[in-house]
Amino acid sequence: MNELLSDTGRKAMLEPLFAAGWAMVEGRDAIAKTYDFTDFTEAFAFMTRAALWAEKWDHHPEWSNVYKTVHVILTTHDVDGLSAQDAKLARKMDQLTT
Amino acid sequence: MNELLSDTGRKAMLEPLFAAGWAMVEGRDAIAKTYDFTDFTEAFAFMTRAALWAEKWDHHPEWSNVYKTVHVILTTHDVDGLSAQDAKLARKMDQLTT
Repeated sequence: MNELLSDTGRKAMLEPLFAAGWAMVEGRDAIAKTYDFTDFTEAFAFMTRAALWAEKWDHHPEWSNVYKTVHVILTTHDVDGLSAQDAKLARKMDQLTT
Repeated sequence: MNELLSDTGRKAMLEPLFAAGWAMVEGRDAIAKTYDFTDFTEAFAFMTRAALWAEKWDHHPEWSNVYKTVHVILTTHDVDGLSAQDAKLARKMDQLTT
């Protein structure tokens, strides 16, 4: 079962993500980041790699793509807020771009 | 070069799309449709197939995905409105789901 991040878990897991360009979404317990690639094929290649991890972990992003940018929002619907799954997927997405 | 749809082109190309569930986007010369699939893998499989056509035709959607739904907006940025490319990609996307 997923659980909402505790105050300490939140600090430990989210601070490195904020340092890496993630930010809280206004009005939601969710984090977001916009990735900018060189073109559509790079952007969609990232989405494809991230999609495989999302499906493997059964934890899916809310995301949008316009040409070479991909905007990602992560939250955990069954706990209505951020869980460790979001931090894990955020870290994986960052890894996939490096 | 892309060209804005003429009045007659607009009627001929857009009416069948409206009948197929596409609609004008409020405040923009753009069309949109939301596809609902059975799960994330079906939704992302559709996006992958559509992405290959988009890249082949050098005409890319603005789209978002939340779990099993995909919301697509089509417009032609270099003419700041709808062109025949949008109708062509819309028809292809509909074909991919049948």
